[in-house]
Amino acid sequence: MSIAFIGLGNMGLPMALNLQRAGFDVLGFDLVAAQCEAFSSAGGKLAASANDAAAHADIVITMLPASRHVQSVYLGEAGLIAHVQPGTLLIDCSTIAPQVSREVAAAAQARGLGMIDAPVSGGTGGAQAATLTFMIGGEAADVDRARPLLQAMGKNLFHAGTAGAGQTVKICNNMLVGMLMIGSSEALRLGLANGLDPKVLSDVISKSSGRNWVIDNYNPCPGTMENVPSARGYTGGFSVDLMLKDLGLAVENALGVGAAVPMGALARNLFDLHSKAGHGSLDFASVFDLLAPR
Amino acid sequence: MSIAFIGLGNMGLPMALNLQRAGFDVLGFDLVAAQCEAFSSAGGKLAASANDAAAHADIVITMLPASRHVQSVYLGEAGLIAHVQPGTLLIDCSTIAPQVSREVAAAAQARGLGMIDAPVSGGTGGAQAATLTFMIGGEAADVDRARPLLQAMGKNLFHAGTAGAGQTVKICNNMLVGMLMIGSSEALRLGLANGLDPKVLSDVISKSSGRNWVIDNYNPCPGTMENVPSARGYTGGFSVDLMLKDLGLAVENALGVGAAVPMGALARNLFDLHSKAGHGSLDFASVFDLLAPR
Amino acid sequence: MSIAFIGLGNMGLPMALNLQRAGFDVLGFDLVAAQCEAFSSAGGKLAASANDAAAHADIVITMLPASRHVQSVYLGEAGLIAHVQPGTLLIDCSTIAPQVSREVAAAAQARGLGMIDAPVSGGTGGAQAATLTFMIGGEAADVDRARPLLQAMGKNLFHAGTAGAGQTVKICNNMLVGMLMIGSSEALRLGLANGLDPKVLSDVISKSSGRNWVIDNYNPCPGTMENVPSARGYTGGFSVDLMLKDLGLAVENALGVGAAVPMGALARNLFDLHSKAGHGSLDFASVFDLLAPR
Amino acid sequence: MSIAFIGLGNMGLPMALNLQRAGFDVLGFDLVAAQCEAFSSAGGKLAASANDAAAHADIVITMLPASRHVQSVYLGEAGLIAHVQPGTLLIDCSTIAPQVSREVAAAAQARGLGMIDAPVSGGTGGAQAATLTFMIGGEAADVDRARPLLQAMGKNLFHAGTAGAGQTVKICNNMLVGMLMIGSSEALRLGLANGLDPKVLSDVISKSSGRNWVIDNYNPCPGTMENVPSARGYTGGFSVDLMLKDLGLAVENALGVGAAVPMGALARNLFDLHSKAGHGSLDFASVFDLLAPR
Repeated sequence: MSIAFIGLGNMGLPMALNLQRAGFDVLGFDLVAAQCEAFSSAGGKLAASANDAAAHADIVITMLPASRHVQSVYLGEAGLIAHVQPGTLLIDCSTIAPQVSREVAAAAQARGLGMIDAPVSGGTGGAQAATLTFMIGGEAADVDRARPLLQAMGKNLFHAGTAGAGQTVKICNNMLVGMLMIGSSEALRLGLANGLDPKVLSDVISKSSGRNWVIDNYNPCPGTMENVPSARGYTGGFSVDLMLKDLGLAVENALGVGAAVPMGALARNLFDLHSKAGHGSLDFASVFDLLAPR
Repeated sequence: MSIAFIGLGNMGLPMALNLQRAGFDVLGFDLVAAQCEAFSSAGGKLAASANDAAAHADIVITMLPASRHVQSVYLGEAGLIAHVQPGTLLIDCSTIAPQVSREVAAAAQARGLGMIDAPVSGGTGGAQAATLTFMIGGEAADVDRARPLLQAMGKNLFHAGTAGAGQTVKICNNMLVGMLMIGSSEALRLGLANGLDPKVLSDVISKSSGRNWVIDNYNPCPGTMENVPSARGYTGGFSVDLMLKDLGLAVENALGVGAAVPMGALARNLFDLHSKAGHGSLDFASVFDLLAPR
Repeated sequence: MSIAFIGLGNMGLPMALNLQRAGFDVLGFDLVAAQCEAFSSAGGKLAASANDAAAHADIVITMLPASRHVQSVYLGEAGLIAHVQPGTLLIDCSTIAPQVSREVAAAAQARGLGMIDAPVSGGTGGAQAATLTFMIGGEAADVDRARPLLQAMGKNLFHAGTAGAGQTVKICNNMLVGMLMIGSSEALRLGLANGLDPKVLSDVISKSSGRNWVIDNYNPCPGTMENVPSARGYTGGFSVDLMLKDLGLAVENALGVGAAVPMGALARNLFDLHSKAGHGSLDFASVFDLLAPR
Repeated sequence: MSIAFIGLGNMGLPMALNLQRAGFDVLGFDLVAAQCEAFSSAGGKLAASANDAAAHADIVITMLPASRHVQSVYLGEAGLIAHVQPGTLLIDCSTIAPQVSREVAAAAQARGLGMIDAPVSGGTGGAQAATLTFMIGGEAADVDRARPLLQAMGKNLFHAGTAGAGQTVKICNNMLVGMLMIGSSEALRLGLANGLDPKVLSDVISKSSGRNWVIDNYNPCPGTMENVPSARGYTGGFSVDLMLKDLGLAVENALGVGAAVPMGALARNLFDLHSKAGHGSLDFASVFDLLAPR
């Protein structure tokens, strides 16, 4: 099967290579020359443009930074939707605004094309190890058609609903993670200020009603857990600025659909203050230090 | 072994009866006559006052509503600490301010008495079924001495540190639960406003980084889970006003020790608004409705 | 001078009539037939479409509900910018996103047309009495050209900067008003809960560092002030839902420009909860009741 | 008239000297030897203890750091209330918890002594220039008796109600100021991020519904105003840590009386984060920098 892969950045590059390794015929493209070279050096075949890559593809996959890039690549007279062959399946793996996913999917549908949104979680590590989680929106038949490709790049596939549902599930989940991180940090800081041992406190919480993914797998307090960002100076995980992007998508979406997210909005602003203080590229668990006594 | 049990309310009464059932010799007291009668009707032996109950006890257990009641029962010339026999072990199971726990324990220690704080979670159901969780602060020897009694009333015992550590762990955990509940509700409401199926969304979150005790065990969205308060009109669980009490203890403690709890403080105020709107006696998962579109 | 006035709603209708009264030659249009009739009944002349109204106008004024209406009326092949005569001045009095104001002004400029954004404050009362305040963005020459018209509709004109500056000043000011209202309400409620007389408290605050426009002119506590919404059951002022719209514009804009607005975002969510509880059409001072003890 | 003045710190020292200058016979005391010396050097007469100072005083004034110092000086067998002559009037100018003011006043009343709470605003500058504002709680007759002394130390006297009312008014006002400062900073930062001139924005706000004391008298944006802390590196005004103390009193009081203060609690936590980042001794307008883009 012939695949066009548009967007060969930190995430897209290893994803495209995993597809190739799995035996798919991949033609890649990125606006950034260095990314194209990296793909080529690793044995990838390059096209001269997004439309060239997609011209004869059975399936097009995009992995782009933000809503405006997705709109630019897919929509308008110069966009993919106007240029791909009938029957091409479109898969957007970017994390973008759900309303934009729905808009682009509607444009695809108007031309009779199937399209799914399939944003991922798992970071660059998951992209390299082909252990990503895909959160998917779209028609069941299209999701089934995409499944073999997604399984070559990831481990867990969740079909959450129609167009945009993948994006929505991702921002709901990630907004919650942002809150879990700050909430768990507050609880740990409160315990520390009272003289508690943070390992003991974490252990009790993990067996009680405060249990959550952060306490179980990503404890922000140094010394409580090995092989997590807090054990290595908050390096190498999911950055504050990426969390800020996802919380921004959640708050923007909430404004659009009329949902109240008081805690989510506060979490976004706290990560923003942390980023503004100069820590945007650290792992998001470093927000633990925003609460540090002096 | 001879036990004095002071405070025979909704929690204390079934706890005292479980001790009696386990073979301990229990002498009970409560300032409220009706509570004394309830204990007596169930076969309990009553004393005429807290000090009378404790006069010949090996171990005194108290289960009282708030800090001021604990101070009143234990401290001063008329208090238990001044009146019990040397060697008596004091166990306070009330949920109160950690600083008050430490103050009372220091007074006990000054008279040479052992004292532990052992607040519980599990609610009236756990009290009746003897499945409570105890979060314990105090000296190891005193905790060991208390263990057989606590095991007759509960299932999980966590020794978290020295005096006050039981209270601190409890308020840290419960502050976190309060945030998990509102945060999970915001995520579910955001999904609903985007047309997602809340069961599908909850299922994905429970397998992703947003996983937490609320989504796994106490989903606030009606129709997602059976045998939880959201499945029966938010009745019969842990009330908004009890959550408000615990969040108030957490915020008050944070002020005292100089900890920043921006999300915890917001959670407290949101539960307060929900209570002020008339829903204080509903289960705390009903905060899901504070976010309901109209 | 010949004026086209597009948008004859609760605000636009009295504004257009004031222009006519001041001697300007006004041609009006609204998509809603009833609004056109109201203008006609009051002696106004109607056009058959926005473009017809503007075809021979010296100056076009628009007063529309939201960003998308402004985009729709001005942009694209069917829009005003493509159809008006060279030299026509465009004045948008709608309250919309600053980025959309800048986008539309740039499209006007690309066709060589002058355009200013001039959102108003003062409500329907100010529109009728011609006492509106205009917050204006655009080139000085264009603002000077608009001045006689704006003075026929309002009292205070603030030229705040280039295109979009009028919108930005308005959302900055209104975000602040939203916070003043909730903040003043919290201070008054705290005083009441301590037994203070709210008139005495308001009087002291108005002479102290807590002084602000809400305490001085729009006290939300019934019984403290006459002729304000709190004195008449929170009717007849600036509605919760309009405040919610302005706070939404502020939060959306903050996301776009990367500004942190923790208190502004919380204020938006609190007004949202108040609206969701069914009070969206009351005056925004009614948020005082969101904090009411029960 | 003979006055005892207990507490000769940064505020108390200039206040006591102003009384002396006004012709009152002042006997001073402070637990800190250096403060006693400073008073003595300036021509003040010293007593050996608080009780010695008060033994023959007509009126006792205290100016102490926190609730616990006030309790310690007034209450118990060694306290002032047990030792002063009948007919002595007690004036506490400390800023403390309203509930503690009420408790101490009740103890004074039980011994037949008049007592008022009269916390001040105006800072060390106001203390030196005798331009302080007093917010007063107590009986009218006692307030009248205190008036000549207060007028020798300050300019504005507000009698707000019975015992504790002075403290309550102060925390209500200061909680509001804390919110005005952060809210105004958010509005200014949002304007800056959109390219507005902060002087123009401040000017418009000061003539619009966002008007407040911070924008009018204490603009936190450098370059907008002279002779304010923002014009001199945020030095020399009211420190972040003092604002944090007052917001802590407000939140603690709100917990006690059951008031909801969502914005006040958030303001407290934001000042706390700013203090924890190392800026506690700067003027509280420096919170403007917590929001600074990087």
